[in-house]
Amino acid sequence: MYLYQHQFVPKEEVAISPDDRGYYFGDGIYEVFRVYNGELFEAEGHYRRLEKSAADVRICLPYSIKELHEKLIELIQLNHLQEGTVYIQVTRGSALRSHPFPSQPEPVLMAFTTEMQRPIHKMDQGITAVTADDIRWLRCDLKTLNLLPNVMAKQDALDRGADDVIWHRNGTITECSASNFMLIKNGELWTHPANNLILHGITRDVVLKLARQLQLEVHETPFLLDELKLAEEAFITGTTVEITPVISIDNVPIAQGLPGPITRQLQQAFRKHIGLA
Amino acid sequence: MYLYQHQFVPKEEVAISPDDRGYYFGDGIYEVFRVYNGELFEAEGHYRRLEKSAADVRICLPYSIKELHEKLIELIQLNHLQEGTVYIQVTRGSALRSHPFPSQPEPVLMAFTTEMQRPIHKMDQGITAVTADDIRWLRCDLKTLNLLPNVMAKQDALDRGADDVIWHRNGTITECSASNFMLIKNGELWTHPANNLILHGITRDVVLKLARQLQLEVHETPFLLDELKLAEEAFITGTTVEITPVISIDNVPIAQGLPGPITRQLQQAFRKHIGLA
Repeated sequence: MYLYQHQFVPKEEVAISPDDRGYYFGDGIYEVFRVYNGELFEAEGHYRRLEKSAADVRICLPYSIKELHEKLIELIQLNHLQEGTVYIQVTRGSALRSHPFPSQPEPVLMAFTTEMQRPIHKMDQGITAVTADDIRWLRCDLKTLNLLPNVMAKQDALDRGADDVIWHRNGTITECSASNFMLIKNGELWTHPANNLILHGITRDVVLKLARQLQLEVHETPFLLDELKLAEEAFITGTTVEITPVISIDNVPIAQGLPGPITRQLQQAFRKHIGLA
Repeated sequence: MYLYQHQFVPKEEVAISPDDRGYYFGDGIYEVFRVYNGELFEAEGHYRRLEKSAADVRICLPYSIKELHEKLIELIQLNHLQEGTVYIQVTRGSALRSHPFPSQPEPVLMAFTTEMQRPIHKMDQGITAVTADDIRWLRCDLKTLNLLPNVMAKQDALDRGADDVIWHRNGTITECSASNFMLIKNGELWTHPANNLILHGITRDVVLKLARQLQLEVHETPFLLDELKLAEEAFITGTTVEITPVISIDNVPIAQGLPGPITRQLQQAFRKHIGLA
């Protein structure tokens, strides 16, 4: 079942208007929540980010967060979801095609669930990445439906034989196409600061908190493409990828081409955090 | 009538799948054609640009240009359109939400017509503009459905009491939210070069050709925000706005706050070009 226009309906009954501004302009926002054991993980962080995206693109959410939370719980129960994700998007609604906001916008909210196991194999073995120019707009902190650069970069990485892209803007590493990037250098953790150039990942926050609990030195400081060669370990963080090691970048192995010990420590702490170990 | 999924159907029968990648990612491209006297204006230029956008975002157009042209002519006739626009968009089609391209994408094409008179009043009286940072991605030459920055900037300009925005990137003037920008300085025409930072307007091309025919010196050269104060005239060019004078920028009048003589000359030449004078 989908949550669509205030009702729970089968997917077949969801018909988007050709005038939906999400379809004309990508004029909308979204979130992806992780569900473990039938429960929304870090829901508070996702709601706060949804509210921030909505406020900054000036879309009124059709529900209070309390109402939305009740709806999403109901959706999860209706779909008997144990392990997976909840996707939700809100567009500025339908109007004849014209750039200015409609005078009386009626936002369109759509949400659905997807069954998905944790990516055990990739978290264990690691993934490969290639670097590319980050050509996105300057509000990468907003989770909007303008995702064409992310889509293109991901496909380009796959075509180059890698699992994902690591973006750099004029030589400064930012993040990956749908996850944040972190590296370990001299036993310390480095990641791009949470400004307008990266998405402020919920998992990123969790991992930094866990890292500090493990007494790791954490630098939320820009670092350069060139510094990748000095990395002892590298990994990505995200709602579905959790903490996934990166074992080679541009065909050069990171350290021995194997997930490193600090990455493993963080993965272990993360498992514990989600109640699995 | 709409052209949708290879058929001519009433708008009410157009139902977009929630899985359309245009809806999830803005993963698609579009064009807006001008129709004068029932005929597509500068069709060749629009088709060439559509092909370029499609190639660069790697979407296969569902028709050859010849077939598409026949379909659009039929659409215009079915809708008895004399003066107005044809809008067409092509998305990468429907698939479960995932960034990589679907293995067998089936692009979704939608086209419709809109009756629209030439904006005589604005072309005569001119419009006002405000400047703002151009924060878009670095492929502004592609006409994609990722238009949220354009939408936001247009609405911000309206909220600031102006008709449109003039964007600058680190101080270099690029263009407006849905049109190109030109200015006259020392009797010569200046506009941003047609690179990755602006849309390569079809009307822009026409106007530059007409300007050269009028023996104007044309500079397709970047110029700075500061140079706006030196402008003797300014105007925007676009498929629906044609040549519309800009009479004030950031509340400062351009010259006397009236459309200038070279702008008028170009408007006259443009009218002739479209067969009206």
